[in-house]
Amino acid sequence: MNWPPTLLASEYYDLNGTHIDVLEQPPTALEFARLVHISRPVLIRGVEIPTMRFWDDDYLAASMGETEISVAVTPNGRADAVTQGADGKLYFVEPHVQKMKMADFLRSESVPDSDDSEIYYLQSQNGNVFSNRSFEGTPDPSEFEALRTDIPREIPWCSEALGRSPDAVNLWIGNHESITSIHSDPYENIYTVVRGSKHFTLLPPTEGWCLQERIYPHAKWTRKSPDAALTMIPSPDVSIRWASVIDPHTPGKLPSDAHPLRVTVEAGETLYLPSGWWHHVSQEDKTIALNWWYDMEMRGMSWILLNFLRGVGEVPLGNSSESSEKEDE
Amino acid sequence: MNWPPTLLASEYYDLNGTHIDVLEQPPTALEFARLVHISRPVLIRGVEIPTMRFWDDDYLAASMGETEISVAVTPNGRADAVTQGADGKLYFVEPHVQKMKMADFLRSESVPDSDDSEIYYLQSQNGNVFSNRSFEGTPDPSEFEALRTDIPREIPWCSEALGRSPDAVNLWIGNHESITSIHSDPYENIYTVVRGSKHFTLLPPTEGWCLQERIYPHAKWTRKSPDAALTMIPSPDVSIRWASVIDPHTPGKLPSDAHPLRVTVEAGETLYLPSGWWHHVSQEDKTIALNWWYDMEMRGMSWILLNFLRGVGEVPLGNSSESSEKEDE
Repeated sequence: MNWPPTLLASEYYDLNGTHIDVLEQPPTALEFARLVHISRPVLIRGVEIPTMRFWDDDYLAASMGETEISVAVTPNGRADAVTQGADGKLYFVEPHVQKMKMADFLRSESVPDSDDSEIYYLQSQNGNVFSNRSFEGTPDPSEFEALRTDIPREIPWCSEALGRSPDAVNLWIGNHESITSIHSDPYENIYTVVRGSKHFTLLPPTEGWCLQERIYPHAKWTRKSPDAALTMIPSPDVSIRWASVIDPHTPGKLPSDAHPLRVTVEAGETLYLPSGWWHHVSQEDKTIALNWWYDMEMRGMSWILLNFLRGVGEVPLGNSSESSEKEDE
Repeated sequence: MNWPPTLLASEYYDLNGTHIDVLEQPPTALEFARLVHISRPVLIRGVEIPTMRFWDDDYLAASMGETEISVAVTPNGRADAVTQGADGKLYFVEPHVQKMKMADFLRSESVPDSDDSEIYYLQSQNGNVFSNRSFEGTPDPSEFEALRTDIPREIPWCSEALGRSPDAVNLWIGNHESITSIHSDPYENIYTVVRGSKHFTLLPPTEGWCLQERIYPHAKWTRKSPDAALTMIPSPDVSIRWASVIDPHTPGKLPSDAHPLRVTVEAGETLYLPSGWWHHVSQEDKTIALNWWYDMEMRGMSWILLNFLRGVGEVPLGNSSESSEKEDE
């Protein structure tokens, strides 16, 4: 069983190409169950999220009132990303999390960029609207309690197809400087854009090796005092496995074996992003999105094979001389 | 990507065990779509095949009348199996195919065994009842035309789940001496026992390497004259890839990494045998079965990964000194 990974990648590409199917209306549960089995991204139109019609800034600010929400702050727009530290080493850096009112957050998103401004991104993604506790009947507090009545707790055709409720429902608000670095999740992901547009760059699980996952030391953007600038503080003894390719769009960063799919999801559109697919996400200014994460099917072979394609057990350190790549932007 | 195959096999086994789920009634299309995604064998009760109630020997013989059917004949009950030739080499040997009336065939199945008797097995398995031509509206002649009205052309919940009609529907009739050697198919297989019982020994795709597929020269059981005994005649320039493990039940033939599942399917029961699963099949005397083969989903990763698990491109010859095993029964 000594196939070069290039062969799996090329066979997958030869069979599937880089086409993304577009559905003009949501699938039935049965149609979606078939799509999950195929495990290819699909752009879906006509998913009815009433929210889309009335979620302007004034409404959101008024609804949320004085409630404080957790916003990711970074100097570069890259939360949860590999970034070069002052010591020249590469770190996987988590954002600083700052509490602020929705009105203030939305105002910050409207300020024109300057080179020294910090980037704010609402991306708490821990089931920030609903977590699985909501479906288990246990208390499920949320900073977005006031918006919950606007947000569907689940996507009926997806819940029915998978035979389960979502594990997490998240609200995302960001601008063109906020970027989610490329990674994959063990979730079936339903991602709906409410306002603005999101740009996804996707790689199938067979091409994950092109991203050179490495072990990076962990750090966190931190403010030493409330008014201080952000500093990257390493976390002792914590390390994280993450892709070494920071921007898959930079020429030369991906080998020719990689065949990225690019898709822009506009307001009113929904992306089905299958479990195990690698995704890099950016967006236009003031893009608002919702996503529903459903646990992937763990029975059978899918989980075993996704791990195999990631190359479990053979991950080198990210700062060794042969494998590191310096941040290039 | 240099995992030892033992690791994939043990991870799959650790996650899934050897349990076979039993459904007391047929699944809905949506439930079956989920089962196909999990790709584990399932025993299903209550699949309504009216045939079961009235298919005794007299009815079958009377319905078929003078029509000749194609029956596989071998000296050892092993059609399409690796067998040692007179020259000591191992061959993949196809059965002799003999035309006979149903009444004569059924009578031959009732004769008590003697050491020198030939074994007859109705296993033409080329869509012998219905082929995909039936669903494409083109002529689809069958030796079993007279029985077609008794046999469902498709399994509604399976066709609906997969979004397609069967590629082939087959009738099988055999006795305890007829054995199907272990192999896998790129089909979702619905297998219903009408009379008697079938014994399946199954290995998941992750354990296919335990069967040591090799390239064997092809041969065919042949009668030099109508009354002559069967002789194995090699086919020049034809070779076939097949499992070297002839009987997975012989102690020592499978490595300890293999975790075979054993299931007996009784009359009135149906086995869902997922694509890519390895299966060895034997049966009680006068077992009658029907199966519906549906093309597996070729889009996505399933096909690529099944081929990978078979180890495409690294198949040695079956008669080389280090890899051959002599037939042991």
